[in-house]
Amino acid sequence: MAEKIITISRQFGSGGRTVGKKAAELLGIPCYDKEIIEEISAKSGFAQDYISEYSEDTEESGFFSALSGRDYYGHSNRDEIWIHQCAVIRELAEKGPCVIVGRCADYVLRERTDLLKVYVFSDLDSRIERIVEQYGETSEIPEKRLKNKDKRRAAYYEIYTDQKFGDAANYDLCLNSGRIGIDHCAQIIADLYNSEDFGK
Amino acid sequence: MAEKIITISRQFGSGGRTVGKKAAELLGIPCYDKEIIEEISAKSGFAQDYISEYSEDTEESGFFSALSGRDYYGHSNRDEIWIHQCAVIRELAEKGPCVIVGRCADYVLRERTDLLKVYVFSDLDSRIERIVEQYGETSEIPEKRLKNKDKRRAAYYEIYTDQKFGDAANYDLCLNSGRIGIDHCAQIIADLYNSEDFGK
Repeated sequence: MAEKIITISRQFGSGGRTVGKKAAELLGIPCYDKEIIEEISAKSGFAQDYISEYSEDTEESGFFSALSGRDYYGHSNRDEIWIHQCAVIRELAEKGPCVIVGRCADYVLRERTDLLKVYVFSDLDSRIERIVEQYGETSEIPEKRLKNKDKRRAAYYEIYTDQKFGDAANYDLCLNSGRIGIDHCAQIIADLYNSEDFGK
Repeated sequence: MAEKIITISRQFGSGGRTVGKKAAELLGIPCYDKEIIEEISAKSGFAQDYISEYSEDTEESGFFSALSGRDYYGHSNRDEIWIHQCAVIRELAEKGPCVIVGRCADYVLRERTDLLKVYVFSDLDSRIERIVEQYGETSEIPEKRLKNKDKRRAAYYEIYTDQKFGDAANYDLCLNSGRIGIDHCAQIIADLYNSEDFGK
């Protein structure tokens, strides 16, 4: 089977986005990441920053935040973004071979048989090093920032997919980027995509 | 870092044992599987079949089975086997580069920095096909047999390691053998073992 679509789920700070971009470069196919946000913004009218904040993570937990931003029918803005997000991901996948980073694309496209589903993760220390290098220091302790982000992302994934984030069973391939290295991760994905063994 | 020890955790019926053997062949290093049982038997005096039954899975659940086979100090035979199993795994790892299949070796050797920890799993259908092909038909429905085995193996892993079986975070690499194919799985492992990228 010639594989068509690669989805990359990733832990915050694992370098999964870079793995996706590098694999796409090796394969000569597009990699969609920020483009998804732009498209959702165009369709929904929500600002890109707002979508960025609510398209993968739950808001801070709490009773009032759970009720905020809901319309008459109980739809939250997050639900609205989810609906547009699903449509954008399906449209991008229809265009042809590509890499899609994050945003539950593995779940949104679950009925396609031509998916290569990848999960990129890493240990806490190398993720801390990476986020400080990439996003700089903030007032929040990096470890706390990561754990908070993990919790929100896992909750988001579980709410919308009814699956557990980080459970190997949801993927074809899980890569510890801190141990394997970003370049080697990208190479494993590209080799598998090109291999005749895959999905036979 | 030249990697020394590969541990393979695997779902029953995923072909993880064959992946381990093939990776070892590619690398020209030994693969330990049944040898662990033989060694435990020699050290403990328990029969090999008995060890085989209790060295990776819990017994059938139930109040009486939980109490059976315990000595004066509350040690069960399974605990006794675990203690010998840890010793055997550490001794084998001390001998030099090798592949160790199953038996929580990833956890037993967790303090070594030269481990490549792999988890091999697969979807239910290809596992059913594999166990029927390998072990033949039994009176038990294959799906029920697999699910029962999964439950017992997960419980064993969690009791002795305090970790969740199948959680990607416990490994360096997780491979869906049903999608990737046994040979390609072995090749990914061998390439990674030989790569200078790994564990830098």
